[in-house]
Amino acid sequence: MSNGHIVIGELFGTAVLILLGGGVCAAVTLKKSKAKDAGWVAITFGWGFGVLGGAYIANGYSGGQLNPAVTLGVAIKTGQWSHVPYYLIGQFAGAIIGAFLVWVVYMGQFAAHLTDAEVLAGHDVDPAGPSTRDESLPGGPVLGVFSTGPEIRNAVQNLLTEIIATAVLVLFILTQGMTNGLALNGLGILLTALLVVGIGLSLGGPTGYAINPARDLGPRIVHALLPLPNKGGSDWGYAWIPVVGPLAGAAIAGGLYRLCFT
Amino acid sequence: MSNGHIVIGELFGTAVLILLGGGVCAAVTLKKSKAKDAGWVAITFGWGFGVLGGAYIANGYSGGQLNPAVTLGVAIKTGQWSHVPYYLIGQFAGAIIGAFLVWVVYMGQFAAHLTDAEVLAGHDVDPAGPSTRDESLPGGPVLGVFSTGPEIRNAVQNLLTEIIATAVLVLFILTQGMTNGLALNGLGILLTALLVVGIGLSLGGPTGYAINPARDLGPRIVHALLPLPNKGGSDWGYAWIPVVGPLAGAAIAGGLYRLCFT
Amino acid sequence: MSNGHIVIGELFGTAVLILLGGGVCAAVTLKKSKAKDAGWVAITFGWGFGVLGGAYIANGYSGGQLNPAVTLGVAIKTGQWSHVPYYLIGQFAGAIIGAFLVWVVYMGQFAAHLTDAEVLAGHDVDPAGPSTRDESLPGGPVLGVFSTGPEIRNAVQNLLTEIIATAVLVLFILTQGMTNGLALNGLGILLTALLVVGIGLSLGGPTGYAINPARDLGPRIVHALLPLPNKGGSDWGYAWIPVVGPLAGAAIAGGLYRLCFT
Amino acid sequence: MSNGHIVIGELFGTAVLILLGGGVCAAVTLKKSKAKDAGWVAITFGWGFGVLGGAYIANGYSGGQLNPAVTLGVAIKTGQWSHVPYYLIGQFAGAIIGAFLVWVVYMGQFAAHLTDAEVLAGHDVDPAGPSTRDESLPGGPVLGVFSTGPEIRNAVQNLLTEIIATAVLVLFILTQGMTNGLALNGLGILLTALLVVGIGLSLGGPTGYAINPARDLGPRIVHALLPLPNKGGSDWGYAWIPVVGPLAGAAIAGGLYRLCFT
Repeated sequence: MSNGHIVIGELFGTAVLILLGGGVCAAVTLKKSKAKDAGWVAITFGWGFGVLGGAYIANGYSGGQLNPAVTLGVAIKTGQWSHVPYYLIGQFAGAIIGAFLVWVVYMGQFAAHLTDAEVLAGHDVDPAGPSTRDESLPGGPVLGVFSTGPEIRNAVQNLLTEIIATAVLVLFILTQGMTNGLALNGLGILLTALLVVGIGLSLGGPTGYAINPARDLGPRIVHALLPLPNKGGSDWGYAWIPVVGPLAGAAIAGGLYRLCFT
Repeated sequence: MSNGHIVIGELFGTAVLILLGGGVCAAVTLKKSKAKDAGWVAITFGWGFGVLGGAYIANGYSGGQLNPAVTLGVAIKTGQWSHVPYYLIGQFAGAIIGAFLVWVVYMGQFAAHLTDAEVLAGHDVDPAGPSTRDESLPGGPVLGVFSTGPEIRNAVQNLLTEIIATAVLVLFILTQGMTNGLALNGLGILLTALLVVGIGLSLGGPTGYAINPARDLGPRIVHALLPLPNKGGSDWGYAWIPVVGPLAGAAIAGGLYRLCFT
Repeated sequence: MSNGHIVIGELFGTAVLILLGGGVCAAVTLKKSKAKDAGWVAITFGWGFGVLGGAYIANGYSGGQLNPAVTLGVAIKTGQWSHVPYYLIGQFAGAIIGAFLVWVVYMGQFAAHLTDAEVLAGHDVDPAGPSTRDESLPGGPVLGVFSTGPEIRNAVQNLLTEIIATAVLVLFILTQGMTNGLALNGLGILLTALLVVGIGLSLGGPTGYAINPARDLGPRIVHALLPLPNKGGSDWGYAWIPVVGPLAGAAIAGGLYRLCFT
Repeated sequence: MSNGHIVIGELFGTAVLILLGGGVCAAVTLKKSKAKDAGWVAITFGWGFGVLGGAYIANGYSGGQLNPAVTLGVAIKTGQWSHVPYYLIGQFAGAIIGAFLVWVVYMGQFAAHLTDAEVLAGHDVDPAGPSTRDESLPGGPVLGVFSTGPEIRNAVQNLLTEIIATAVLVLFILTQGMTNGLALNGLGILLTALLVVGIGLSLGGPTGYAINPARDLGPRIVHALLPLPNKGGSDWGYAWIPVVGPLAGAAIAGGLYRLCFT
């Protein structure tokens, strides 16, 4: 597995992950979308099948990690750190490309949404799901298409939620074959994708389940850069939580794996 | 793999794909259906399991491509073009048969829907999902059972959406085993079917995700030919986009595959 | 594969199929159920996972056909008819047992539903899904927990719908390994179960997709025998359609298989 | 398979099962959750993917039984009882840890829910799904995040429902490979997880489908111990049913297996 292959695999795979994951958030939340208001089940399956698509495409080249937290967990398990920078480069580049492609696919819906009188008046400001977002939230109504945000803003709880959710994901992967760069087979990818659906359904309620620093930070950068009128802020005050939480969760999972499963 | 087997496999497989795919659109949108208003999740899983059924039936004979865009991508990857015409014949013939069978299965529902006073008054004119279709749309309320149409009519965006969505599908298939006419195994078919669910959930919002020229053009011809009263126009002005977009997306995916994955 | 094993396998498998399938109809339609109004997606996945459970349990003994239409299709394909009576005995006995167990599991809900003033006044009479059932329908509000019924009563259309839906199912099975009594593997069972979900989503709108004579007739007998007050009629006038339609569809699929796939 | 491995595997696996299963109940029922009111389909898939995650993590060490009823059924089938205590220790410890982690992940949502005026006034007291819970129910509005409760309180029916639902689960497992401590493969885990979704959809309506004594009793203990204001009672009067019912169902399934499938 060459470093070039790792970058290419992770870049394509993470781009597909974010394209489908950000795409389903756009589909469910923006005006003039056929999937408007399709709900949380749609969002979680959309993200899960984004994992399926991205990991399958990347699998032959990089094993399809698509997530710095997974990469950290695998490195802790295997003790091999030399490939890590190439994984991260591919993952962040892919996430940025994927988030940009979400905007391309939904450009008309973004424009319609951000000029809608009802949206501008604040009667339809929650981009991330069926529930009502905390009134104090920075970040305009379309930030939820790109990045995660909490329903209740509390750094301790938000961090703990991301830590626990990511630890489940990484422990799941470490107890299977995606280590030492070995590719998962198709069945393993399917099971991982469905677990991600499950994490979303079960643990996504408080923060929107980043569980992946690249998934949150890459699209947040794109949100900050895209010249969309009325897009609101990018909520940089929250941005550290979906980076630190998943990495801490991965470290805990890696430690638990070494302590209990070897 | 004989050319006759290819035609038979693709014909049966694409007919089942369109029967289930068009069927779920009828089930969710027409009056007097038990699945009325079952929503976008139902529509996307219905299409995905249509891929599952059709590809599985076709698999032993033709590999179950069921889509001219997939056939184009495979030909670009392998450099083998001689089978392509037989794939296309089977796919378009199957799509036409499948769309006709949708009408047979739902004939009473079509009649009830097209004579319903509320429908005729325009209060229930959106056949394709829970959202409101652009007021300027040509094509009567039942066209969405047969063919795709945009929520916002903008040729550039609509084309880009179909290109990107199809490129994801074709790149997914090319990085796996469905090449040189080799049959996918059952697991590969399942993963592809679930990816199609994901593409629908995530990228289907703007245009209804044709991602397959035969899937859109074949049923549109059937819509034009069926003598249904009040059926509205067949929106031929839009018909080129779900043909050109998917083929362009497949060509891009084929090029990316040759450039980056070999 | 002994005849005794066939009867045992089909009996247990079909009982589980009907228990889960009838169960989800009860869960979604009866008063005082946690799944009340969970919708058509819930119903179709419940039936599909009923196929999964029943076929998996039966698999080692009988191959898990659970359906006289499947048995007919397999017999046409293989030319072996001697086992057929044992399959049918197990299937009908299992369907009757399964439908009775649905009543046991939901006995309190049946009682609450059938004494509810709103139900008795006719404001909540549709047991089969979110749509409005034809006003002329014989059969009280709980018949839909046991057997299928049409949204629009038209023998020709209803029969064609059952024929086409069953032909898809049987052709799917015949093009795979469930023949000559060979057991499907777990993946084949999963794919078949998901196809049944798809047939329900896509082709279940007009008639509620019996696609299985035992699935409809066995529970209808149980409905007729159970001494439930206010249960309404058992709609015997319709009962021949979900028997004849599926058998005709299976015969067509068997013929198409022999004509086109051998 | 050492006893230590069994305890570790079952502890981690059951903790993940309960974390995801209890998590989805919190996600769907508590205020200030993005998944609020996502419905019964979300709940059943969340529990099913909890089985997937937990069984997959535990698989290499303990086979991933995660359920005293499954352990009982396997012991009846194999006649080997010596490992049973270690399975039970891991399962109950894991269930308690998992339920505690649900509270950690959703601590802000619990606080918001239990101080909400509408909730306290009794207008939103049903923690377990879309239907209305029996007015006579002891146990406050958040008990349903932890443990099961009946829609209609009737010991005979509630017990029969749990017996039948668990018998389906255990018979499914016994007719496959999860015996003698042999690990299921990934496909078997996926099929079992989807069957649990099906049992939830189809048989969960009356009691909320404990089908697992550890799943119900462990979280009930956590509910009793957590110092949450306004949490209501822990409904100890019902607690024996989701213990006795599943064990009786497993015993029946084990007996049927020995009688009919060997």
